[in-house]
Amino acid sequence: MTTHDKITDATTEQMLTLGRRARAAQREIALASSEAKAKALLAAAAAMRDSVQPILDANAKDVAEARAGGMAPAFVDRLVLDKGRVEAIAKGLEAIAALPDPVGAALAEWTRPNGMTIARVRVPIGVIGIIFESRPNVTADAGALCLKAGNAAILRGGSDSFHSSQAIHACLVAGLRAAGLPEAAVQLVPTKDRAAVGHMLKGLGGAIDVIVPRGGKSLVARVQEEARVPVFAHLEGICHTYVDRDANPDMALALVLNAKMRRTSVCGATETLLVDKAADAAILPRLVKALLDAGCEVRGDAAALTADSRVKPATETDWSTEYLDAIISVKLVDGVDDAVAHIAKYGSQHTDCIVTEQQATAERFLTHVDSAIVLHNASTQFADGGEFGFGAEIGIATGRLHARGPVGVEQLTTFKYIVRGNGQTRPG
Amino acid sequence: MTTHDKITDATTEQMLTLGRRARAAQREIALASSEAKAKALLAAAAAMRDSVQPILDANAKDVAEARAGGMAPAFVDRLVLDKGRVEAIAKGLEAIAALPDPVGAALAEWTRPNGMTIARVRVPIGVIGIIFESRPNVTADAGALCLKAGNAAILRGGSDSFHSSQAIHACLVAGLRAAGLPEAAVQLVPTKDRAAVGHMLKGLGGAIDVIVPRGGKSLVARVQEEARVPVFAHLEGICHTYVDRDANPDMALALVLNAKMRRTSVCGATETLLVDKAADAAILPRLVKALLDAGCEVRGDAAALTADSRVKPATETDWSTEYLDAIISVKLVDGVDDAVAHIAKYGSQHTDCIVTEQQATAERFLTHVDSAIVLHNASTQFADGGEFGFGAEIGIATGRLHARGPVGVEQLTTFKYIVRGNGQTRPG
Repeated sequence: MTTHDKITDATTEQMLTLGRRARAAQREIALASSEAKAKALLAAAAAMRDSVQPILDANAKDVAEARAGGMAPAFVDRLVLDKGRVEAIAKGLEAIAALPDPVGAALAEWTRPNGMTIARVRVPIGVIGIIFESRPNVTADAGALCLKAGNAAILRGGSDSFHSSQAIHACLVAGLRAAGLPEAAVQLVPTKDRAAVGHMLKGLGGAIDVIVPRGGKSLVARVQEEARVPVFAHLEGICHTYVDRDANPDMALALVLNAKMRRTSVCGATETLLVDKAADAAILPRLVKALLDAGCEVRGDAAALTADSRVKPATETDWSTEYLDAIISVKLVDGVDDAVAHIAKYGSQHTDCIVTEQQATAERFLTHVDSAIVLHNASTQFADGGEFGFGAEIGIATGRLHARGPVGVEQLTTFKYIVRGNGQTRPG
Repeated sequence: MTTHDKITDATTEQMLTLGRRARAAQREIALASSEAKAKALLAAAAAMRDSVQPILDANAKDVAEARAGGMAPAFVDRLVLDKGRVEAIAKGLEAIAALPDPVGAALAEWTRPNGMTIARVRVPIGVIGIIFESRPNVTADAGALCLKAGNAAILRGGSDSFHSSQAIHACLVAGLRAAGLPEAAVQLVPTKDRAAVGHMLKGLGGAIDVIVPRGGKSLVARVQEEARVPVFAHLEGICHTYVDRDANPDMALALVLNAKMRRTSVCGATETLLVDKAADAAILPRLVKALLDAGCEVRGDAAALTADSRVKPATETDWSTEYLDAIISVKLVDGVDDAVAHIAKYGSQHTDCIVTEQQATAERFLTHVDSAIVLHNASTQFADGGEFGFGAEIGIATGRLHARGPVGVEQLTTFKYIVRGNGQTRPG
């Protein structure tokens, strides 16, 4: 990465200009019709299909720079585009175009004794800043979700995907142009200068309403630490599956394997398995064996260690570690309340599951576990906007305000109150 | 106000302890039954009625200190309690006890194609920090609203109402005790040390989820500037009433007078009157005369100046001034779009009204004005949680996220997703 200390002042000016343009465009895009927004997204998808070669050429530049810079193969893999990936991005734009428009929907409506009606109506949030790393598809996904919800977006991609993001962004702009919408509704930060991120975190002089970081833990931690505007994010997903004494053993086995091993790198993957010590003694060894046989490393407490000779001892830090890998920590707990207490102490308020056939026990867990998503007899890997029926998501939030859990188009809106009267004045 | 520089470290420790206690109490109060919370509030009201004399004695101390300190009479008036005001506070507690419990309500519920049901369920936010000035009743109102929504509250009153707030807080604690709820669910900062406010704004080491300032503009500005946790607040209410060419003149007159003069010190009072230049030429002078005759100072643009000799010329700063007094600025605009543009430039996104008989014009205004509350043919003074039917409010927020407009018990909650399955695993 090149440093550009000399042009920091130029960056400041450039970023503030971006902010002013976003704010102006936002007022227009907030009022755009559903048809115009859908047209822009469909035209952007068409532009991507027309621009496969320029996109791949731009991407090849990024990939060559990353390889020359000695980046790890896994990193380069996230960066690489091919025809299939470009087509998938275009399809993603079309899927977002097909979603219902959240703007204008009445969330509630009531009449006051004096005859006034009050409606709580969805409106866009305003300007969303997205800060992401190497995956160039985020340019399209995040920009499109913001646009669908009537927001303007300021996208800051990783410098490693600089050329790819620019090529994809050009397609979004072509789509906006085709629909007669302001091009500044989706802007890409045009500099690699790292100072740009700092400016965005400060809000560009009031021009950014929310920041959404998309990337690894160090990016999210920096954003949460430094941002002076609200952030929709989760730092980590230390998700638990608790197998209760009243669990169906076969269901528990299927859920635990899926929750851990379907994909180990997603934030909804289970990282800790809690087993009720009053459960049938055969359950713990069976779960542990299945995990080990599936290629998962198991780090256990004393009870889990005796369950299988391949289990390694867990240390205190294991209970608060998000592995994002084929590793699981396993612990025996004393019933649902002990499971709840463990999750309160070590969890990240992301996603936690109980497996039980006992309804009352399930309700106790669902009520007492203070996480964005709590599940009964379903895999923690369902922690995903698409799986929730949101169509698409920009991420998952573990903050308590406004957006919690999967952040889809609806979560990218706010509301206002529309009061309709016929001359009511307030007495007294 | 005494300074306690030497005891700042003691304050730090004291405040962090308050935060830890609040967090522990919050877990309990979040799960408390509706009955227990209502019982606590009713018992607190009873305790207030039993403690009228001690409350008035404590208040007399504050009042004497304020007078000795040379405080302005208006300030002292906000501070003074009498039997009637204490009874009003007790009645307020009973009214909050009678509100429906927002916690546990399902905001939405749906079934996925795989048979899982997903419910979005209201849960408390957590710990709310309230920073207020001289009105001691806020101790009871704010504490009770937080409690009703299952939150723990940390209250920091003005040092001028220190003794009064302590006496009222003792009644809340008595109520919590009577209901078997943790006393730390409503805590009052026990020191006058101003450093306490700074600690709260930093969030007490993660113990505070939201800050609500209750007081004048300088308090709110400081909180908005310094807080490192989310804030529910409005800095100012520069509210507009726009009288359209198609307004009913009699209705316009009644609405404008009520919107400005019913109470001039509330945040929903109209500060600027915009009149369509295509309206009947008789309307502007009639509105201006009525305002002047009602004792309102009118500061007008050129057109308004010609309407009545008593009108004073408005300067540029008048359009962005919240008078909170019997003063109004008046301007002729060129139809609804010009009114919308004026409000976008000078307004505070609080509350704005259009008076018109033309439905399409009304809809244009309601859609295009980007304020928390927009009204058609109803007074801006309805900007109030009670008038919205929320039962009570902790204030009005002009921020865009989570709570916008009146902040009542529902706005003091967040939500979580409860997913119920029968063994569903995620494919692919």
